[in-house]
Amino acid sequence: MRLSLTPSTDASDYGFVHRIRTRFAETDAMGIIHHGAVVPYLEEARAALLRHAGHSYNSVRAAGVDFAVLELSVHYRRPLRFDDLVDISVRVGHVTRATFQVAYLLQVGDEIRCTAVTVHGAVDPRGKAARLPAWLAEVGNGSLPPD
Amino acid sequence: MRLSLTPSTDASDYGFVHRIRTRFAETDAMGIIHHGAVVPYLEEARAALLRHAGHSYNSVRAAGVDFAVLELSVHYRRPLRFDDLVDISVRVGHVTRATFQVAYLLQVGDEIRCTAVTVHGAVDPRGKAARLPAWLAEVGNGSLPPD
Amino acid sequence: MRLSLTPSTDASDYGFVHRIRTRFAETDAMGIIHHGAVVPYLEEARAALLRHAGHSYNSVRAAGVDFAVLELSVHYRRPLRFDDLVDISVRVGHVTRATFQVAYLLQVGDEIRCTAVTVHGAVDPRGKAARLPAWLAEVGNGSLPPD
Amino acid sequence: MRLSLTPSTDASDYGFVHRIRTRFAETDAMGIIHHGAVVPYLEEARAALLRHAGHSYNSVRAAGVDFAVLELSVHYRRPLRFDDLVDISVRVGHVTRATFQVAYLLQVGDEIRCTAVTVHGAVDPRGKAARLPAWLAEVGNGSLPPD
Repeated sequence: MRLSLTPSTDASDYGFVHRIRTRFAETDAMGIIHHGAVVPYLEEARAALLRHAGHSYNSVRAAGVDFAVLELSVHYRRPLRFDDLVDISVRVGHVTRATFQVAYLLQVGDEIRCTAVTVHGAVDPRGKAARLPAWLAEVGNGSLPPD
Repeated sequence: MRLSLTPSTDASDYGFVHRIRTRFAETDAMGIIHHGAVVPYLEEARAALLRHAGHSYNSVRAAGVDFAVLELSVHYRRPLRFDDLVDISVRVGHVTRATFQVAYLLQVGDEIRCTAVTVHGAVDPRGKAARLPAWLAEVGNGSLPPD
Repeated sequence: MRLSLTPSTDASDYGFVHRIRTRFAETDAMGIIHHGAVVPYLEEARAALLRHAGHSYNSVRAAGVDFAVLELSVHYRRPLRFDDLVDISVRVGHVTRATFQVAYLLQVGDEIRCTAVTVHGAVDPRGKAARLPAWLAEVGNGSLPPD
Repeated sequence: MRLSLTPSTDASDYGFVHRIRTRFAETDAMGIIHHGAVVPYLEEARAALLRHAGHSYNSVRAAGVDFAVLELSVHYRRPLRFDDLVDISVRVGHVTRATFQVAYLLQVGDEIRCTAVTVHGAVDPRGKAARLPAWLAEVGNGSLPPD
């Protein structure tokens, strides 16, 4: 697998934070947030990062590009619970001509709950590999407007 | 609202049954299936009915029609639980030129868990109202191939 | 069915508004938000109302009460789309000794997208009917702290 | 990370297959199955394997043990689409005193769509680490009743 980014457990290594609140619908019979519910959290944080960088995902798609998810890796360190306010730190890295990776750190207050990495490839509306927009390399360099 | 179909609590009033098994991901912290999880069950049963009638939802969409959901009503009578085998009885009714309604009865063994009704409208790929396929009236008349 | 509340389409008839942003994970192949995704939106808005009224759902549950969903009715008037900011107006009504109803109006800007009603019953941790907390009648009377 | 199992892309390396059909609710605006929807598929296949081995997940939980998900890794090779019949091959491996890993291969017909690995830890109802049931080592040795 090409997934190669290591998600830091230090929030200061990330350039952007997005906060979500967990939903009751996302809990399971173990009384915690179901592990699958974390995947949309990552996606929401990624979309918030793009928006913050001036490139909403709708504008990316309007330009004829989708960022398909090629790989996903999540490390569940402590459970999330209903009504938790989760700070999701996000960082883009390992940008190539056709792919990029995103690292995530999920915290409730100072407590680490999860780390994760996703690998993305640019595709056109038919699902064929496409060229990454040039601005993504800048996002990967941490050239973000201040939060 | 135009929702007018009354879902019978007698399975013999329905012409088709589709069985699903609940997933752990669909449970919530109350230890039961989350009420929102029932909505995809209804949709899966509806798709199974169309397939049984010889018109898979993919073939409907390939013909340029979507069945948008206009209204939804669910009556939760007893909780569903993880690993339940749920028999979903389905019946199409109240077919007009542009809309149809579907009634549902959800049972685990002989026990009634939910009843529900959905109202659908035919739309084209841009979301504009379209004419219902003619075969839907026949499905509404109960003219189904034997289960 | 006992569902009897009519959801007003005038936001000024509601005492509380909660804003959510739709997620890409909630879209479907029709290019819109899947109708089932609205159910967790209603629940999130309900939880926000309780929190605003000084009774978080966690505190309700810690007191030994769950608010089971008995009925659900949704009227989809116009589609929601990815990245929409949705203002969900919420109002509690028709409070009895054991049940209450909640009306919802979903808008994007001034445009109405959905209306909905849920009916809830107080249950104990074993799922048996319980007495509603007294403060719910006050929430139903609109006695909310200012938003 | 302790995730160390490599999911084979050869179905004959797996001892058990579980078939699911994708749901329309699981599609997204890219017209494919949303990547997050795969996580419940893995869980359903895992539960089917346990049931086949004579230990339903309900019986595991009734014995006071939950199998918490510690890590998740998914490699999306080709998109899944609505109405696909997906054969999920499952294999338990790398069983220790407190953890086990599960490898997955998702195919539609002969085409590989995804591979995945999950790492699980036995926990008691309070979420504390517990001892794995002894029979899991046998499942890991491939000592399954014939499919």
